[in-house]
Amino acid sequence: MGGTGPVLALVGATGAVGSVMVDIINGRPEVPWGEIRLIASARSAGKRITVRGQELTVQALAPEVFDGVDVAMFDVPDEVSAQWAPIAAARGAVAVDNSGAFRMDPDVPLVVPEVNADAVADRPRGIIANPNCTTLSMMAALGALHREFGLRELVVASYQAASGAGQSGIDRLYAELAAVAGKDLGVRGGDVREALAAAGLGQADSPFPAPLALNVVPWAGSVKDDGWSSEELKVRNESRKILGIPDLKVSATCVRVPVVTTHSLSVHAVFDREVTVAQAHAVFAAQPSVVLVDDPAQGRFPTPADVVGGDPTYVGRVRQALDFPNTLDFFVCGDNLRKGAALNTYEIAEQVVAAR
Amino acid sequence: MGGTGPVLALVGATGAVGSVMVDIINGRPEVPWGEIRLIASARSAGKRITVRGQELTVQALAPEVFDGVDVAMFDVPDEVSAQWAPIAAARGAVAVDNSGAFRMDPDVPLVVPEVNADAVADRPRGIIANPNCTTLSMMAALGALHREFGLRELVVASYQAASGAGQSGIDRLYAELAAVAGKDLGVRGGDVREALAAAGLGQADSPFPAPLALNVVPWAGSVKDDGWSSEELKVRNESRKILGIPDLKVSATCVRVPVVTTHSLSVHAVFDREVTVAQAHAVFAAQPSVVLVDDPAQGRFPTPADVVGGDPTYVGRVRQALDFPNTLDFFVCGDNLRKGAALNTYEIAEQVVAAR
Repeated sequence: MGGTGPVLALVGATGAVGSVMVDIINGRPEVPWGEIRLIASARSAGKRITVRGQELTVQALAPEVFDGVDVAMFDVPDEVSAQWAPIAAARGAVAVDNSGAFRMDPDVPLVVPEVNADAVADRPRGIIANPNCTTLSMMAALGALHREFGLRELVVASYQAASGAGQSGIDRLYAELAAVAGKDLGVRGGDVREALAAAGLGQADSPFPAPLALNVVPWAGSVKDDGWSSEELKVRNESRKILGIPDLKVSATCVRVPVVTTHSLSVHAVFDREVTVAQAHAVFAAQPSVVLVDDPAQGRFPTPADVVGGDPTYVGRVRQALDFPNTLDFFVCGDNLRKGAALNTYEIAEQVVAAR
Repeated sequence: MGGTGPVLALVGATGAVGSVMVDIINGRPEVPWGEIRLIASARSAGKRITVRGQELTVQALAPEVFDGVDVAMFDVPDEVSAQWAPIAAARGAVAVDNSGAFRMDPDVPLVVPEVNADAVADRPRGIIANPNCTTLSMMAALGALHREFGLRELVVASYQAASGAGQSGIDRLYAELAAVAGKDLGVRGGDVREALAAAGLGQADSPFPAPLALNVVPWAGSVKDDGWSSEELKVRNESRKILGIPDLKVSATCVRVPVVTTHSLSVHAVFDREVTVAQAHAVFAAQPSVVLVDDPAQGRFPTPADVVGGDPTYVGRVRQALDFPNTLDFFVCGDNLRKGAALNTYEIAEQVVAAR
């Protein structure tokens, strides 16, 4: 970084996604940036983080930090983005935002570079949105299939990791695991709530609405109309917008599982045209950001433990539905902190400067 | 038990399901049996187990143990049932079998008492089959909906507990949890395979094809044609047989999760007739073996940790699909060792003697 290239700002540099973002920037063979600024809340200001061999001091969020910035990536809560992304844009930066604040705004493109890279150019508010991590975990695979076969319907069930709820989700899962492990809990798995209470882990202190260790929790996000969760509606509405299929039929059920990082989804996808497993395998093999892991007889299918830390979307268990025409069932795993958040945001930022 | 009632035999009395079966028999307010015999492999013979206040000695499996037996419940591997259930039947017992050996035999009824109790009477081979635990976990709920609205299509994703793989599955999950808990595994969750190997937990020694702690595994059962697992085909074929809908359209994806006991399923069900959430709630409320837990705003939905050890099927997250007509999305949890195995088997045995 020599001062001649564009200036990148990372807002939320000290959070769970922000720290993965720093890893991604450090791991790139080269970057286009002349300068990188790390920004966080006043509480984290002054921290020193090494970026591409240079020790940078985290600056407190303030309007002036955006002066001279070309691209500002935001990994902060919705309400912080809602306030600050427009300030960054007003100061001349393109804001790439990973919150839910702007995703469904018709004047804000929602971008997955493999699917709709061109959309970055049409940004009347100076803001580009990064999709929700659950939606993102399947988009590279679904976008590739949609181009070939025409997607019509989606039924999705998720297996979402604790880190989707940020650092507090990760900390809580570890604390719960420590409270239940090493105990003789019998064939039933004991009373998990009792074990957590005995360890001082009150449910009210958890970012999750039920115990996560030795459990699955069929809820993520906030309460929306008619029993739907915000997370489930995001999967539906964001998939429609990214893929450009306004009438895509979607039913999603979002479930949290005791995995630290990497979201998985079971996908039932109906297409306009017939699709075989061999055709789907060929489509995935031709998509650089998708890795096919699909040979159950050899124990080969994607699992979070095997794909975490990787950039691609991993796809396996591809089957032609036995009773539904033009339909595939498959399973995807994607690191929700990388492609699901930091990586896709960074890829959008790169796309913005490449398109200048 | 006074010697005047019918004789019940429990084959596989010392296994994970067998021990739950003993709990169920001990927990009944009254039982119709004049005598109960506990049977297991020669290795477990001689063990003493208390049943309804009486200490019984486990007998080794042999043809003679079935003499005088009215109902013999089998909770043993497929190949043991395949050999021994016909022997029990030849000696005059009605064999109620919880293995996969006979479920799809057209001369063997496959029974869930709430759905098709009358089927117990038509048993030309003297054998009645108990369904697979994953299928069973949703049958009471689906059977009730089918009677009212006419089931046509099912898309199912499972969250299956370790105990579905028996005691070795339970032991493995506990051992894996102990190996990963209390470590600083970071935002990625560390390298689970490495942690297990360091603890001496080789993958080849596991009943699961991948790590289960801090992971989900999209595989259960054996490899069948075209990428399907035996477990997924059981969900399809057994649902059709139990519900009496030979052309029911089914796609299932079966996934193991790090829960000790209680299977969960995300269900997308399409009906012949329109169905609202209020109508579905009314149907569930009228079904004694279904408990409705459905108020997300109050944090009320079923989770394995809250329902394990219970007899009913717990249903929540009931939503009318936004984009599919006549369609409900919902989430069910059922204790796979109780209703999913021991309880339903025992209910069939009771049905057999009640129908005499």
